[in-house]
Order: sequence, then structure tokens, then C-alpha cells
Amino acid sequence: MTASIIDGKVIAADLRARVADEVARVKRDHNLVPGLAVVLVGHDPASEVYVRSKHKQTQAAGMASFEHKLPADVAQADLLALVAKLNRDPAVHGILVQLPLPKGLDTEAVINAIDPAKDVDGLHPNNAGRLAGGFQALSPCTPLGCIILTKSVHPSLEGMNAIVIGRSNLVGRPLVQLLLNENATVTIAHSRSRDLPALVKQADLVYAAVGRPEMVRGDWLKPGATVIDVGINRIPQDDGKTRLVGDVAYQEALGVAGAVTPVPGGVGQMTVACLLVNTLRAACAIAGLPKPAV
Amino acid sequence: MTASIIDGKVIAADLRARVADEVARVKRDHNLVPGLAVVLVGHDPASEVYVRSKHKQTQAAGMASFEHKLPADVAQADLLALVAKLNRDPAVHGILVQLPLPKGLDTEAVINAIDPAKDVDGLHPNNAGRLAGGFQALSPCTPLGCIILTKSVHPSLEGMNAIVIGRSNLVGRPLVQLLLNENATVTIAHSRSRDLPALVKQADLVYAAVGRPEMVRGDWLKPGATVIDVGINRIPQDDGKTRLVGDVAYQEALGVAGAVTPVPGGVGQMTVACLLVNTLRAACAIAGLPKPAV
Repeated sequence: MTASIIDGKVIAADLRARVADEVARVKRDHNLVPGLAVVLVGHDPASEVYVRSKHKQTQAAGMASFEHKLPADVAQADLLALVAKLNRDPAVHGILVQLPLPKGLDTEAVINAIDPAKDVDGLHPNNAGRLAGGFQALSPCTPLGCIILTKSVHPSLEGMNAIVIGRSNLVGRPLVQLLLNENATVTIAHSRSRDLPALVKQADLVYAAVGRPEMVRGDWLKPGATVIDVGINRIPQDDGKTRLVGDVAYQEALGVAGAVTPVPGGVGQMTVACLLVNTLRAACAIAGLPKPAV
Repeated sequence: MTASIIDGKVIAADLRARVADEVARVKRDHNLVPGLAVVLVGHDPASEVYVRSKHKQTQAAGMASFEHKLPADVAQADLLALVAKLNRDPAVHGILVQLPLPKGLDTEAVINAIDPAKDVDGLHPNNAGRLAGGFQALSPCTPLGCIILTKSVHPSLEGMNAIVIGRSNLVGRPLVQLLLNENATVTIAHSRSRDLPALVKQADLVYAAVGRPEMVRGDWLKPGATVIDVGINRIPQDDGKTRLVGDVAYQEALGVAGAVTPVPGGVGQMTVACLLVNTLRAACAIAGLPKPAV
């Protein structure tokens, strides 16, 4: 058996196009321009790349993009004052504070200060709580992307057995909630789980989000399973360069699984596209419009 | 094999005694008297019984108990005003609005109005979110009781396979979070799960919280499993009376499991005791004291 490859690049491009269509529709019908504000503190190079990419894709989707750059030594009070200003700004429907913040800043206090209705990263406890309670909520972007990738293979996940490996706040825990909302049966495994290969063997859907290169082996998988690899690990090569690998042994998985996401080109492609989805949804919710078609 | 019976009555009495000891300690050392305010709207007979029992047990533990009874036709604004007053009252560390509320009142708005620091029912989205995020939080009382009953058999749950059947906001979903915090591997099953008997067969710990009389059969269980039965179902008997049964076929389970909670006399005993625990914890947290020893 050779697994089909779930092409994150194509699926993300399609999602961005559908977001752009809906943005055009709400602009035309309701004079609403969804706006995303990104706050970048300091000069972390990786963060600067992400923020540029978010800015570009937000504008490409027809939304307003606001960038706020603050020095690494900004006072906590000044950062909180900016968040408060963005909370009040009617042109801003999504607020994203790029993490990690420089040392000395209280990340939890900053996240808690964001209006939950504008929390497009889905990190505010109120959104996590609404998600955990099965209510409508802004959910973190990476888990949302995982669900969309899975549904490109299985339009309905009802009754399927899913395993989520990893219980982080950003991925594993919210992913469990989204899978429950899709009526999957969900097992959450982690570093303390016993006999992980046997647990994985029973799963129709496998989500690897642990940050350990190629930890999930091909012979762990149930034949035909759908494998979503959230890991992005940089490992050294013989030629002195590095390459990216996921948490799943990709080549092995191709021989057993039904469908697999590659790394790169899988989940990573979806995150910014889902951020646009969240910003669109937040704008519609704040404006009292029905949930958009994406 | 005959399972041991997990005696909720004895364990709850022990827990209440330990709460009373800690209440005496914080009173002596910090001049702090934990206070629980219960708000009862209308005259639901079952609710009145619960509220009386809470009042009695709160006082028996040495805490202050405040009862607020409002007519069934109270205005939403007046109920919210009472909650706001209790939020401000320094003698009140726990606020419990007895559910269900009479028709016409907005339950979600009332729960959201409670100060999360005083939300001893663990229902505010902020607490659910903190719990889902793995942070310290006030968690709902019934799942907390389930964990304490389990730990009376297994002091450590690390690496054990647990299954939670039922995904309600009050029990199933928060129970999953508490089990994850105990480092168990957790599967969440529900009405859409396929082959539930096979899923249950793999579990060292079985939590039944679906509200279907004796749904979980003895031959579903892994020999030696610990079974915590959250169900309380009233079923008619031949003599015209009714009797209480759980979600587990108790007599069958006794022959297979390692330990089982009876119904009545199991989980149900724990709920008010855990409410006292939450009130004590809330009082200590609000006063800036370390987490109490219970």
C-alpha cells in the first residue's frame, strides 16, 4: 500500500481563496472589512518571518492588516496599554501577540488582556473554556488546520478512533476538543503513556504533536490510517546542513498509512490560513453577522 | 474474582474531616473563615434538598454558610445584582448558584457573572479554560470526587489507561482534564463511538457518565479494572416502587472488576464534600495563602 499525500500547500491555498471570497462578500453586503492586528515585540528572526508572512496573506485575502512593533525592552504596562487600545479599536477584529515574548514580560497577563472576541490565536482561557465546554469559540490555528486536513480525506470523522500524541495547550489539548466536536472517539497519549505503539495501532486517525523527530514508526500504524504530522524538527544531515522532519517516520508511514501529511508542506501550511479564517469569523461575530461559509 | 467496593460514604466522611481540620487551621493561624454562599431560585424540591445538605455540611466543617433564596419569578437583573454583591463580599469565598434555574433566566449569563476566583462549581469558562490548559483551576465537584475515589485504590494513575464514557460539560469533559493532570492516558467515548465494549476492555480505569441504566456490562470490563459509576438512574421495580441504579451493571461488574463504586453510596457521596474542598481552596487562594493540604 502506498499512502496518498495530503498536500497542505494546495489545501491552504484553497482555504485562503475561500476566505478571500467571503471577505469580498461581507465587504460588499455589509461594508465590513475584517482587520487583523499583529503585535511583535523585539527582533526574534523567526517571529519576524512569521509576522511578514501573516501581513502579506492577510492583505492578499482582502483584509486590513495592522502591524505594531515594540522594542524588546518595552514595559509590561505599555504592551498592555496597546492591547487595550486594540480591544477598543472597531477596525480591529483579530489581535495576535506574536509569541514567544522577550524575557521579563508576563505572557499570561498579556493573553488574558486580549478581548476574547478578538483572540484569533484562541489562547485566552475564556476561549479554551468555551472550546472545552463544546461551545462556539475561537480555537487555536494549528489544531483547526489539522481538522481541515483530516476532513480533506474523511468528510465525516464521526465514530472514528483518533489518537492525539502530545498534550500541549497550543495543539494537543484543543485538538482533542475539536475532534470531540466532530464526534470522533479520542485518546490522548503523552510522555507517560504506556505501550504507545499499541495505542497508535488502534487509531484510524493519528495526530503526532510531540516534537520528537520521527518518533512514530510505520509499524505502529493501523494499515490505512490517516496520519497528521504536527512536528517540525530540524535535524543535522551528513553534508553539514539541516533538514526538517516531522514526528512521524514519513517514508515508513507511506508504506502503511492511507494518507499522510508531509513535513514540510503539511500542517505548517495551514496555520496562517486558519488565522485568516479566525479573523473573518471574529469580524462576523463582532458585527452580529451569521458565521461565514468558511 | 470479587471486586472490592469503593465506599463513597466513608471516603467522603474522611474528606470532610480533613477539610474541617484545615478550616480550623486557617482560622487559628490566619483568622480566615472560608464562606460559601448558595443561591437558590424558586422551589424545586430536589434543589431544596441539595441546598439544605450543603448548608449543613458547610457549617459542620466550620465554614460560614450563607443562603440566598429568591422567588422563581426573580428578574435576571436582580439575580445578577445579587451575584455582583457576593462577588464583592469579603466573607464569601465560594458562590454556588443552584442549577437548574427556572425557565426565563439566562443560566450562561449568571455563571459568567460569577467571579472565577469564587466559582466553586467550576462552571465559569475561565475555570474550564484554565483546567483545559493544565493550569490551576477550580474544577467541577463530581469529577474531582471521581479522582479522589480512584486514588483511594491507586495512589498514582500515571500511565494507566482510562476511559471516560460521556462528554458532558459537568462531568466527562472536566474529568478528562483531571485524568490528564494525573498523567493517565485518556480515551473519551460517547454516543457516537463504535464498538464501545472493545474500547472499555482496554481500560484500567472506567468512568461511566452517560445516564443510561446499567449500560456498561460486566463482560465489557478488563479483569481487575477500577470502575467509577457516575450514573444515578431511577428505575421502576416490580413492586411499583423505584430504585437507583448506576450506568454500570453492578452485580456483573463485581465479578470482573478489581474495584467498583456502588450506586447509591459512591460518587454521589463525594460531590458536596468536594464543594467544601473547593471553597476551602478558593478561600486560601483569595487570601494569598498556600494551597491547603486537602
